[in-house]
Order: sequence, then structure tokens, then C-alpha cells
Amino acid sequence: MPERQNPSGCGPLGIISGGGGLPFAVADSALRGGRKVILFAINGAADQSRVAAYPHHWVKLGQFGRLRRLAAQASCRDLVFIGTLVRPALSKISIDLGTLRVLPRIAAAMRGGDDRLLTGIGRIFETYGFRLLGAHEVAPDILVAEGPIGRRLPSARDLNDIKLARVLLDAIGPFDVGQAIVVVANRVVAIEGAEGTDEMLARIAEMRRTGRLNAPIGAGVLVKAAKPGQDRRFDLPSIGPQTVAGAAHGGLAGIAIVAGEVLISEPHAVQAAADRAGLFVAGVKREPS
Amino acid sequence: MPERQNPSGCGPLGIISGGGGLPFAVADSALRGGRKVILFAINGAADQSRVAAYPHHWVKLGQFGRLRRLAAQASCRDLVFIGTLVRPALSKISIDLGTLRVLPRIAAAMRGGDDRLLTGIGRIFETYGFRLLGAHEVAPDILVAEGPIGRRLPSARDLNDIKLARVLLDAIGPFDVGQAIVVVANRVVAIEGAEGTDEMLARIAEMRRTGRLNAPIGAGVLVKAAKPGQDRRFDLPSIGPQTVAGAAHGGLAGIAIVAGEVLISEPHAVQAAADRAGLFVAGVKREPS
Repeated sequence: MPERQNPSGCGPLGIISGGGGLPFAVADSALRGGRKVILFAINGAADQSRVAAYPHHWVKLGQFGRLRRLAAQASCRDLVFIGTLVRPALSKISIDLGTLRVLPRIAAAMRGGDDRLLTGIGRIFETYGFRLLGAHEVAPDILVAEGPIGRRLPSARDLNDIKLARVLLDAIGPFDVGQAIVVVANRVVAIEGAEGTDEMLARIAEMRRTGRLNAPIGAGVLVKAAKPGQDRRFDLPSIGPQTVAGAAHGGLAGIAIVAGEVLISEPHAVQAAADRAGLFVAGVKREPS
Repeated sequence: MPERQNPSGCGPLGIISGGGGLPFAVADSALRGGRKVILFAINGAADQSRVAAYPHHWVKLGQFGRLRRLAAQASCRDLVFIGTLVRPALSKISIDLGTLRVLPRIAAAMRGGDDRLLTGIGRIFETYGFRLLGAHEVAPDILVAEGPIGRRLPSARDLNDIKLARVLLDAIGPFDVGQAIVVVANRVVAIEGAEGTDEMLARIAEMRRTGRLNAPIGAGVLVKAAKPGQDRRFDLPSIGPQTVAGAAHGGLAGIAIVAGEVLISEPHAVQAAADRAGLFVAGVKREPS
């Protein structure tokens, strides 16, 4: 397991929190490591009821000035970006004075893919003295490790499917796309684009229904990894109980995750869901073995 | 334009016809070239009302014996497989005696990807003295050629998106997947798996609706090609008016097709649909320029 990043200074860890369960998994992990946290919860994205359990401020997208001020008041210099955030329409962003100053740089960053958008925004924070950390640095225990999660293990056929997916993931790595692939019985049936893993898994179920995918239930794997060139401080992929539900609904045998590259939200719920559905969930090495 | 394959012998060209408009486009092209045709229309796939306009027999999937007998009666030695055909459940196949004999070989072929399935079945036909031709050989005028179809031309931004898609198509070529990619503003947003081009395009519209894809309407291209190693006698990709409709619904600027690798059903309808929607449709070279 990677070493936990030591806190710098004495301030709390600022967690800029989008949607889903990951911000809370990161917060809990940091708290377990002895570090105070403060959530900067993004309006319209972060889960209101769960945010309330932590020290927090609500911020709107675009309120960079407000965020800087609140962080300074809390002596918070270390920041983590975590959680889901649909790329917003510019018209929906509340631009405050602090944002206005950096807007040209944000606009430049938005011209690229998701990676560049986030990296660009991250650089802007850094010029204002923040230190940006990845969830894998402040909460290494929520990264999927090598080995099985739950009772079920991949079969020889599953291992073969996993291998093909990993070779393909490598081939498309340079393209800022495709952190996830579904292979069924040695056939690539889905590659994730901008739609996200849950949507891709919904496709598998639909293709089985229409007969376009005609393989026995319990055949096929979802393989998920980080993009090779990805700046892991901004966009580590993740799985959660809904990933297991999607894979089960798609009739897959299980889920393989490249160890150390993917966050797991609610690991106990993932394990319980996998055991209930009879799916394997396993961390694997990046290199096809 | 590639040269039209000369008829072998004096018999008609047998067109084993699946769904969609392509079997009729191939038949019409062969007839224009002075060759008689006979359609072996697959039950449940071929369009009944259109089949009626040609000399034809209906055959069920699995009636290899019946097909051989009918073809022999018609002195038909040259066969083309064309049209859509969802990979059938084995339970839905009517196995006749002629099929029973070759069943082990069909079963072996079905263990591979789509390419291997079709190639395997094609080889079986060849061992019985048939000559298998590709639509591109008997009807070269229905392949998309280089240059625009319709009035609109790709912009500099579109050309840039097309280039990225072609580089990615090359990277995934070896994997028996992904004959089509959507790039929007230099970002890969969708890669076709087993779901097919129409389904992939439906995803683009959906991602715009949910905000997951946030780019101006009229940005982005669909790029479509054949798989590099594909046996073109069995599975040339195709576009038709519904492809233009899907691209328009997805808010794309247009469609680029690798020239000489993709069939076009109803070219006039494609051109009219593109002009009406303000989309470009253009044949391009395979090499990114």
C-alpha cells in the first residue's frame, strides 16, 4: 500500500467535494490518519445530508475568490479535488471577482479534454499558493489493492478476457479516453467514452436484451484502470456498489481493477454486493500476465 | 474507383440478404453492371416488401442444405453476404441436414469475434465450391469515394477532429472492435463497441442532454472505417440516411468516411439528408493528413 502523504503545516485538508460517496471516503480516511478536514462542498453536486456531518462550507462553481478567502481563514493550504462533476455550461457558473482574474486561463484549459481542463484549473490554484494533492496521496487506503474483494475469484476464461482488455487499455491510453472496457468471451463489446462506466454497463444489459450480445449470463468482465498519462490529483477513476450492480445487470462474471489506480467508495458495500450477486471483484496488475 | 469483378461462369450472383437497404443496393449495382442476381433472403432479417422486386428464395438461418440446393438449381456459384444480421441464439437456428454436417466447424467459428464467425462460415461455403465475393467487388460503385457528398465541407476544426479519430482508429484496429469514433472539439467522446453506430450516435444526443457533453451544436465528427484486418467479403461497414439523422440528432458537424472501406446505402437519400441537416458527409483518406 502506498505511504500516506504527511500533512504540510498544521491546517486542515481542504476537500473540494463533488457528487457521490468519494469525498466522504477521502475525508474519513484522512480523519483516520489523524488529519483534520474541511469540506468545500460544491452546490448542486455534493450530497447535502452527508456534507452536514463534517466541517464544511458550500461554494458555487466559479467562486474561486470565495474559496480562497474561506481556505485562508481556515489556514488550509492543502486541497484535494474529489467527486463527480459534470462539465458545466459556462452560463451556469457564478463568476466572482477572484474567478474573473483567472478566467482567461480557465477558458484556455477548457479547450482541451477533461484531463487538461482539470490540470489547468489545478495549476491556477497552485499559483495562489495552494498545494494540490491526489486522493491517492491523502487516502491511500481507499485505492483498490491487488487481490480479490469478496468470495468469488475470476475463472481461467475471465482471466483471458481481462488480459485482452488490458492490452486494449494500453493501446488507447494515449487518447484521453477509455478508462473502462468490457470483454465478453474474448470479444471486446464496449469501450467507455465520455458517457461513464455506469452508462457503458447499461449498454451491456441492453445488448443482451436485443440479442446483439449473445453470450451466456456470467460471461464477461469489466476492466477499469486510470489513463496512463492522467494527472492522478484530479481524476482517478472509481468504483462503488453501483458498479457491481451495473456489472450484475449486464450479466458479467466480474470486475477487474488495475490495482493502485482506482478508488473504491464504500468497500464493504462493494464486497457485500459482489458476494450477493456472485460476481468477482479483484485488483489486478496493470501488465497483462 | 476499383474495377468491377468480372462474373465467373454464366450463373447469377447469389445475394445472401440480411436486413437494411444494402442487399438491394448491391443487387441494383450488379444489375447495372449487366449481371443477373438472385436473392437468398434470410427469414426475419431481409425486408419482405423490397425482396419481392427481385428473383428470390427465402431461407432460414441454418438451412445450409436448402441454400446449396437452391443455388445449384440456379447455377449460382458466386455468393455475396450482405445486410444486417444480429448474431443469433443457437436455439433460433433451424438446422437442416446440410448444416448438421458442417456444425462442428460453425461452432468452432462462433467461438471467435464477429470477424472470425463470418470468415469461418465463409470458408465452409468455399469448401462446397462456392466463390465468396465482397460487396466491394461486385458493386464497387456503392463504396464511399474520396470527396464530399452534398454541399457542406468540413471546417478546419472538423479536419482536426477527423485526424484525431483516424489516429485512434489505427490504434484500436487490431482488436476486432471500433469501426466508428466520435470526436468533439479534439476530445474523443465515443468509441463504437458491439452496439453499432446508430446506438453510439444516440449516446451523443443523450450526453448533450444530460450536460455530460457540453460543446456547441455543430461541433464534432463521426469517423467511420473498416477494421484494418477485416475480411471485407463479410463485414464492410456502411452508412445510410439513418446515420446522417443520428449525427444530426447528436449535434455533430458531419461524417467522415474512410474512402473505399465503407458502403453507402441510398446515396441520394444520404446526400439529401446531409444537405437538409447542414451536415458534411465526406470520403477521406485513411492516413491522417
